[in-house]
Amino acid sequence: MHVIIVYDINVDRVNQVNQLLKQYLNWVQNSVFTGNITKAKLEELKTKLTKIVNVAEDSVIIFILPSQKIVEMETLGKKIDTHPHII
Amino acid sequence: MHVIIVYDINVDRVNQVNQLLKQYLNWVQNSVFTGNITKAKLEELKTKLTKIVNVAEDSVIIFILPSQKIVEMETLGKKIDTHPHII
Repeated sequence: MHVIIVYDINVDRVNQVNQLLKQYLNWVQNSVFTGNITKAKLEELKTKLTKIVNVAEDSVIIFILPSQKIVEMETLGKKIDTHPHII
Repeated sequence: MHVIIVYDINVDRVNQVNQLLKQYLNWVQNSVFTGNITKAKLEELKTKLTKIVNVAEDSVIIFILPSQKIVEMETLGKKIDTHPHII
């Protein structure tokens, strides 16, 4: 399956979420990750996310698609700079 | 077609982009909109977006899907408060 994960996380926890998502997916925009992932790995990721996220303050949306082939991605403006210094 | 639009926009232009996207799509997270849209309306929206976006500073990613039926959406944490006062 293919996922798009977008998050709006309090600054206190944002780096932790970012570091976790980087272990599973590709960083495509400030608070957006995408990638192919197995169902088991996605469940593992969700379990880890729920341990970090404060449900009263934070929001993480996971869009789950059967395949990457059915999604077209267009970017207006700059592409993400994935150099480590901005993390 | 169904789209997911995520943006990372300089604060000077973010309200303008938010107001524009609200005319076409549903606001689901701080800088994320989704919705069903025709190809013609999406082209119109993209034309308007390119007039606002500064390509050196901003980023807008448009994920285009053939149908909403193929995407599953899960939310961890809070859902967006779409009350007008926070815009």
